[in-house]
Amino acid sequence: MMPRGSAVARTEQLTVLKVSVHEILNDPRLGDLLTEVEETQLDEPWKAANIREMRRVWIHANAVELELVEALSRACSECELRWREARPNSDFKSVLSSLSEVLNLTRQSGVSRAEVLGCSPYEALLDEYEPDAKTELLDKYFADLSSFLPSFLQTVIEKQGEQKPGELPAGPFSIEQQRTLGKKLMEVLGFNFERGRLDSSLHPFCGGVPDDIRITTRYTDADFTQSLMGVLHETGHALYECGLPPNWRYQPVGAARGMALHESQSLLIEMQACRSREFLSFAAPLMREAFSGAGRAWEVENLHRLYTKVEPGFIRVDADEVTYPAHVILRYRLERGLIKGDIALVDLPAAWNDGMIELLGICPPNDSLGCLQDIHWYDGAWGYFPTYTMGALAAAQLFASATKGLPNIPTAISEGNFDPLVDWMRENVHSHGSFYSTEQLIEAATGRPLDTSDFKEHLSVRYG
Amino acid sequence: MMPRGSAVARTEQLTVLKVSVHEILNDPRLGDLLTEVEETQLDEPWKAANIREMRRVWIHANAVELELVEALSRACSECELRWREARPNSDFKSVLSSLSEVLNLTRQSGVSRAEVLGCSPYEALLDEYEPDAKTELLDKYFADLSSFLPSFLQTVIEKQGEQKPGELPAGPFSIEQQRTLGKKLMEVLGFNFERGRLDSSLHPFCGGVPDDIRITTRYTDADFTQSLMGVLHETGHALYECGLPPNWRYQPVGAARGMALHESQSLLIEMQACRSREFLSFAAPLMREAFSGAGRAWEVENLHRLYTKVEPGFIRVDADEVTYPAHVILRYRLERGLIKGDIALVDLPAAWNDGMIELLGICPPNDSLGCLQDIHWYDGAWGYFPTYTMGALAAAQLFASATKGLPNIPTAISEGNFDPLVDWMRENVHSHGSFYSTEQLIEAATGRPLDTSDFKEHLSVRYG
Repeated sequence: MMPRGSAVARTEQLTVLKVSVHEILNDPRLGDLLTEVEETQLDEPWKAANIREMRRVWIHANAVELELVEALSRACSECELRWREARPNSDFKSVLSSLSEVLNLTRQSGVSRAEVLGCSPYEALLDEYEPDAKTELLDKYFADLSSFLPSFLQTVIEKQGEQKPGELPAGPFSIEQQRTLGKKLMEVLGFNFERGRLDSSLHPFCGGVPDDIRITTRYTDADFTQSLMGVLHETGHALYECGLPPNWRYQPVGAARGMALHESQSLLIEMQACRSREFLSFAAPLMREAFSGAGRAWEVENLHRLYTKVEPGFIRVDADEVTYPAHVILRYRLERGLIKGDIALVDLPAAWNDGMIELLGICPPNDSLGCLQDIHWYDGAWGYFPTYTMGALAAAQLFASATKGLPNIPTAISEGNFDPLVDWMRENVHSHGSFYSTEQLIEAATGRPLDTSDFKEHLSVRYG
Repeated sequence: MMPRGSAVARTEQLTVLKVSVHEILNDPRLGDLLTEVEETQLDEPWKAANIREMRRVWIHANAVELELVEALSRACSECELRWREARPNSDFKSVLSSLSEVLNLTRQSGVSRAEVLGCSPYEALLDEYEPDAKTELLDKYFADLSSFLPSFLQTVIEKQGEQKPGELPAGPFSIEQQRTLGKKLMEVLGFNFERGRLDSSLHPFCGGVPDDIRITTRYTDADFTQSLMGVLHETGHALYECGLPPNWRYQPVGAARGMALHESQSLLIEMQACRSREFLSFAAPLMREAFSGAGRAWEVENLHRLYTKVEPGFIRVDADEVTYPAHVILRYRLERGLIKGDIALVDLPAAWNDGMIELLGICPPNDSLGCLQDIHWYDGAWGYFPTYTMGALAAAQLFASATKGLPNIPTAISEGNFDPLVDWMRENVHSHGSFYSTEQLIEAATGRPLDTSDFKEHLSVRYG
């Protein structure tokens, strides 16, 4: 909503707030106060969990020298600006020295935090997005997927190649009608418009607070799928936020657990639920009606074919759920190697392309379709990528457990009734906030630790 | 933009910010630090002005006990809620004890601040909205207007009664077309949509910061004048804000001077400039075009007659500029008497009605058209009303000086060119921020202290 020219003023406002937060978190008395309360017998378990979460925030805020925080913040701003110019020109060299500065400072920040957290520097970076994430487990997940996916992908591509290709519904699709359809499906999912809004922006996101959730999507009149899938994905994030425990509002223990579970909730809605034949049998008539469509393109089977099309591509955000993990595995390998120093930054473009050939069998023709495509590293978000695939695994495992416990979930979805699915997530995921670790929560909800089996099973059933 | 159900979350956020501001302003070291710098020879006059403004903020924040601030805040929230129910029912009795609490606490707050500021309790309340405002001067202005207006009003009513009545353009007027017209005229006035927006809300307002200004208006499809005049009025406020000195951004000396000057800028645009024949000769064709209108109703003379119609009424916000001061004078007399204890709250409805008969010759049939119409007192804003009429006087005096210095202003306005007028205001008013007092600024800009002569002259020329 903000006018373009107001960004400087907004930055000033945010800086004031950040400085204020910093002063609170770095108050010299805070560490002792936490120790004091940690040594106290608290009367309720959630209070101990709350203190544990406070300590985690405190560690991340206090482990790194203020000078390093400031230098990293400046380096990221600078590097992000250069990246915005470098990407369209596919000019990695122009951003190399900036990115090198970001990498060096990020590594220092990881080293400082690793000492306090007792883990590796890369794990310390991971920990900020996904608390307690360990490379040992990630290695296991990714090794398993790396051995499963390439041949599975071949099978799927061959199978889909034998089928009649899906037929795209013909546009243009008015943005107003896309918005109306998006809002209608948000309501079907249980989004409460008394406590949130749908707007538009360059990139879809879900922000705000549990009682005031703001979702955006982006529209093009040539295709309504992009805006709609954006809406459904972000609504998954929103349902998690508004399902967080109201009694612990404004407390660290009441916050969402981490990025892996957050992504699990968006992928659960978008991938597990809404690209299913069941959902499309409910939604196809609404789509056809929304755009006054007619003909074969609007039939459930055709839409399902379009929405489950698998094809290796260069761009992560456009990837289907079969090829998506390859994009994440590539980035995970590279960012670990770069942080550790095993890979030199100047070799990144070549290493990227080699990885794409190995994992997906295609080679980006230039760096804007390669190592310049994502903002993450240029903006200082190292250790974020693995949470996407952890989220996909968790989505599959949670959905499988939910439908095992409540076998009527698919039928309900085919009737536009998301209550059984969302109620199960509310009870088993949302309502716990940050009380449990991700590992504990997954185990309590599904009966075993996170693994790849339900994800592979899901892919096999849908695509195999 | 906020969803209705999100108000509680927003209140929590604002409370955190208010507490944080309170802690800064009431830090025990702050008073000594201010004293220290006040005793220092500063190298530039604006820095001394900045310290003077900081001291003023400090005085208001520190003169009142925290318990009183909190009690008053609670009493106002409570009373405002009761008022929202009492007004539609015209039930003053139901809000009497709540309002009594607000009045008592407001009086105490005024007494505490008066001791520090060295003025009367009522002036201490005034000071928060209009720094350095004195009742001696207000008494002079209002006595003069009280002697001029009643007979002038009679003359105007008789004169307008002899004319053919204005003809209302026939609606309905689509809200989208009203919005487009409003935005077009905002651009004519010089509003920068790269640094601000126009939206809609229950009551028109102008908020935000100089680099991100948010204007709202309200729409009804039966009449486009209400939304349009709201837009023009608020754009006057916006031009003041975005004309504030950029070098002093985020400093107290860089803020708008007070509510009287702020209101002068909105009335300058709405009343002085945009209800003039010159502006309407420019705007009438745009209005006609915007709504595909035709016929006599859209002629300049007819619109001018409609927009300068004078008629005594019960409701202040609907009043024309001839009768408006009577509404303010009434409230000024009553709030002074109530704070001083000369008027008992239980007698307010009767005192209100007596005042309306004396000042405008009409008696409200019930209290919702009388002493229940404005939110101000019920919400704790005592001492605010006089700034409306100070603003009207200042608007007339500034406009007269501007057109005396730049006689081409009216012609430029008739061509849709507001640059000469706005540039003059920017140079003589906006760019000074809070460097001068209101009194000094008016005198520097117009060659003499604020008085009623240009306002009376303006009314005489337009209506007499």
